[in-house]
Amino acid sequence: MSLYDKHSALLDRAALACAERHCWSPYPDMPGKYPDAAVAQARGLAAFNAHQGTHFALDQPGTIGDLGEEVSPYTQQPLAIRYPQADMDTLFAAAEISIASWAAATIETRLGVLMEVLEVIYKEHLFEIANAVMHTAGQSFNMAYAGSGVNALDRGIEALVYARQAMRAVAPQARWERQFGAARITLDKTYRLMPRGVAVCFSCASFPTWNAWPSMMASLATGNAVIVKPHPATVLPMAISVRVFRQVLAAAGFDANLVTLALDSTEEPIGKQLVKHPKTAIVDFTGSTRFGQWVEQNAYPALCFTETAGCNTVVLESAADLDAALRSLATTLCMFSAQMCTSPQNIYIPARGVKTPTGTVPLAEVARRLAEAVSALTGDPKKASMILATIQSPQTLALMAQLQQEGAEGIQGGVQVLLQPRGYEHPDYPQARTSTPLMLKVGKAQRELYAQERFGPISFIIECDDAQDALQQATTDVKQAGGLTAFLYSGDEGFIAQAEHAYAHAGAQLTINLTGPMPLNFAAAYSDYHVTGLNPAGNASLTDLAFVASRFRITQSRRPASLADTPQQ
Amino acid sequence: MSLYDKHSALLDRAALACAERHCWSPYPDMPGKYPDAAVAQARGLAAFNAHQGTHFALDQPGTIGDLGEEVSPYTQQPLAIRYPQADMDTLFAAAEISIASWAAATIETRLGVLMEVLEVIYKEHLFEIANAVMHTAGQSFNMAYAGSGVNALDRGIEALVYARQAMRAVAPQARWERQFGAARITLDKTYRLMPRGVAVCFSCASFPTWNAWPSMMASLATGNAVIVKPHPATVLPMAISVRVFRQVLAAAGFDANLVTLALDSTEEPIGKQLVKHPKTAIVDFTGSTRFGQWVEQNAYPALCFTETAGCNTVVLESAADLDAALRSLATTLCMFSAQMCTSPQNIYIPARGVKTPTGTVPLAEVARRLAEAVSALTGDPKKASMILATIQSPQTLALMAQLQQEGAEGIQGGVQVLLQPRGYEHPDYPQARTSTPLMLKVGKAQRELYAQERFGPISFIIECDDAQDALQQATTDVKQAGGLTAFLYSGDEGFIAQAEHAYAHAGAQLTINLTGPMPLNFAAAYSDYHVTGLNPAGNASLTDLAFVASRFRITQSRRPASLADTPQQ
Repeated sequence: MSLYDKHSALLDRAALACAERHCWSPYPDMPGKYPDAAVAQARGLAAFNAHQGTHFALDQPGTIGDLGEEVSPYTQQPLAIRYPQADMDTLFAAAEISIASWAAATIETRLGVLMEVLEVIYKEHLFEIANAVMHTAGQSFNMAYAGSGVNALDRGIEALVYARQAMRAVAPQARWERQFGAARITLDKTYRLMPRGVAVCFSCASFPTWNAWPSMMASLATGNAVIVKPHPATVLPMAISVRVFRQVLAAAGFDANLVTLALDSTEEPIGKQLVKHPKTAIVDFTGSTRFGQWVEQNAYPALCFTETAGCNTVVLESAADLDAALRSLATTLCMFSAQMCTSPQNIYIPARGVKTPTGTVPLAEVARRLAEAVSALTGDPKKASMILATIQSPQTLALMAQLQQEGAEGIQGGVQVLLQPRGYEHPDYPQARTSTPLMLKVGKAQRELYAQERFGPISFIIECDDAQDALQQATTDVKQAGGLTAFLYSGDEGFIAQAEHAYAHAGAQLTINLTGPMPLNFAAAYSDYHVTGLNPAGNASLTDLAFVASRFRITQSRRPASLADTPQQ
Repeated sequence: MSLYDKHSALLDRAALACAERHCWSPYPDMPGKYPDAAVAQARGLAAFNAHQGTHFALDQPGTIGDLGEEVSPYTQQPLAIRYPQADMDTLFAAAEISIASWAAATIETRLGVLMEVLEVIYKEHLFEIANAVMHTAGQSFNMAYAGSGVNALDRGIEALVYARQAMRAVAPQARWERQFGAARITLDKTYRLMPRGVAVCFSCASFPTWNAWPSMMASLATGNAVIVKPHPATVLPMAISVRVFRQVLAAAGFDANLVTLALDSTEEPIGKQLVKHPKTAIVDFTGSTRFGQWVEQNAYPALCFTETAGCNTVVLESAADLDAALRSLATTLCMFSAQMCTSPQNIYIPARGVKTPTGTVPLAEVARRLAEAVSALTGDPKKASMILATIQSPQTLALMAQLQQEGAEGIQGGVQVLLQPRGYEHPDYPQARTSTPLMLKVGKAQRELYAQERFGPISFIIECDDAQDALQQATTDVKQAGGLTAFLYSGDEGFIAQAEHAYAHAGAQLTINLTGPMPLNFAAAYSDYHVTGLNPAGNASLTDLAFVASRFRITQSRRPASLADTPQQ
């Protein structure tokens, strides 16, 4: 049985989910539901621990040294893992050579091998990667399992579904017959799918696998090779991934150099060289807005697909159950210390307050109750550790200190510090880098404070003239500073329709009146489109047809049909 | 009956042709087969004549003057048509306003209106446009009818087929249900297709409608507005087209400013300003390689789709019927004086000659016989007029004179002038700007002469070491200088396979061993992919999914399902 036969039923099922966009996943959503969970988790932890203090073995060409600067946000101790540093030209040359036989394979062969990669990650490396994500990105174990594990695998499958759809839209051959004057011309035509070449995939520090796996799948399925460039703070999850890709590719008879790792250091970054390398044909980038925009401007002649960041917005007009709305908002503001590209940051509220069935709740009270809800979630260290997890980068703590200072200095101008951040003591990791959220109440005069992404557990309650003004400010900020998600609470159907329209034009994905246990910013594979490409938060969407359709090209040859092949008429 | 209902069967039939890539068209392939042909042709001619010496009425906003510098290549007299010159910012502002209701319409509504545009062009303006193409681009009447008329309409339908396919891949709504802890969350999700914004479509001087119509269709079908920027030498075909689009859009209740005309003059070009305009979201460009590359490098943040030019190559290794092959080559070298982006230019031949069933024919003899075949086609003015038609631009005659001079000077270095160009007297238009082809025989030392597009009836016989070298040189030149089409004659199946491989990598569409009455460079809508995007001859293909899939984006909103809507379980 071919690998495609082995996995095609799953791929077909995923294609149905993508078409109908209902809820589906082949994976259990919680680590406890993983088959033989306790054994698997212990094995994964042991595998992670075994990496520490060692050289990570990766049999790729061009090694010229070793690098490694990862520090666990949980222990604040170096992981002391050294990874091969590669000569860039050697990686590109090897990648280019690797493409020939891969591109010549059938669509089904490539898809089968890539589905096998996902299965091997799921069955043999999921908890190892989850621990690696915890101790680099700083996520909680549950998030590392779900968001960086199975949900990222789902998104990989999703990319394969769209790659298959785009490639299958091209007939492999055709017979073409037409009369020219007295003569009948019969041509046999052959269409080939040609890859673009070598793709470079940048992964980010806080959510390494989530965009990287689908991007790699999109490039590889369409016949390209991929060089992975992880953030130097978060290498291990991608190094393990690269090793699995290489092993499965080689076992299937392909050149392992279809997937390689290009590492750099904070001191000597190589990102720009990778983007401008003459052999770079595709760039997938997840990371900062500043470098993302440089990539978009400089990637030519390479294609580029970016997901950066933005200021995700909330408009609070009215609420049937204000407490429920504030609880949901508080939860989402706390989740992984708002270090998700989908975390809300700016909360726009009418000056008169928020309407509820029992009357209008004044803005000051809404702000206070939201701050209290955040406090309630973060007061107990055990609960805090589950939801806040850790702060990935010391730079985030520095930014919070700076904004807290600016907030304090701005009191004369109407700024109010609603919630002072403080470290909390993680019950399992007393040395963890942690912080409860910083919340500031501001007016529109403080736009320079909030009209940009402030990465980390930082949020702003923004006083607006009225509901119209709140919507107008929020969508303007999205259009200008970028935004991936948006959240609205309103009981006014007219206002809801207006907000749907305004956010559609601003290009942020809108969640309306959601309360309850689902995280507001939960993005479901096969159902939610992540990033619209309509504002500065990124130029691509994971995953739609446009994400895959231009990663390959179509060439053809045609020639007169031989008479022997001509069907009798 | 809606316009979509009126046209959907035709669109479905076209979709089948695109999927199977067989030969099909709803239109008669020759002008004589057009319904009531004589009357229609007379009407079309009269309509064309009525334009001359007048102001072209176009009720678009922002008119600040008038412009017009078209000269008929047939009469070398000005057409003396004045077109409105528009204020660019006014056009963009009007286009942006026009989008709202168009983007809000259903996919089917937009497709119906655009199919109606094609029908109105076909039924009411085809011969008017054919005459306009003749007297601007300089094509023969038959080519203007077929290549710039019905075949361009076919390509417009093709773009609509792919736009429909890409848009229909997105579900309009979904119900999504998942358990979170003890709670079941049920969300209703709505997905909207959002246009990018304002597209700018550049059309070229020699084949104005052929790429412009499909590009316009691709942008409009996906909800965008289009500003058409014709080459100042060839305005009338696009001005008529723009007027039809505006009339049909307005009659269907949409804002006519979805399609407007931005004209410039040779002295004061506005192309760069259009590309860099802050409201430009998409650029479609057909024209010179030099400006095309500037567009590709500078279009960001706009998307861009380019088709420029290249040196199309021929490899002659062996031929079962050398005369038939040379006749076909000669015909294609002459057709519209090789002013087609698909015309061959460089013919690579082994030094020892071309193998035939009766022995190897020496290179010098092959060159001589090809030149004789070209002479035979162009010796009689009536036949010459049918095939060569006219020379669109005086610059082409200047280039031919320059190359003829360089060829004569290079005789010491091995250059041979195989065929001297001369004007021929057109039987119907004695003042026509005409030329028979220039053919040069060169060696690889003269690469600077031939390794670039030499626009017009100019070709090079290039002496190569052997067949391998010929293929190697040809595909290297394509990769470096660009190339859309390629032609091979060989009886060696191993060599053919090698050539298919090499040209697929070079990104030129290959035609093998074709002889007979079909023009070698004939590109069939629904069957042949035009441009691969793999070499400098353009970055897009007309039409594949990638040509349409990124012209729109997907936004979504989601909210808890109301209980009343929940299906019983």
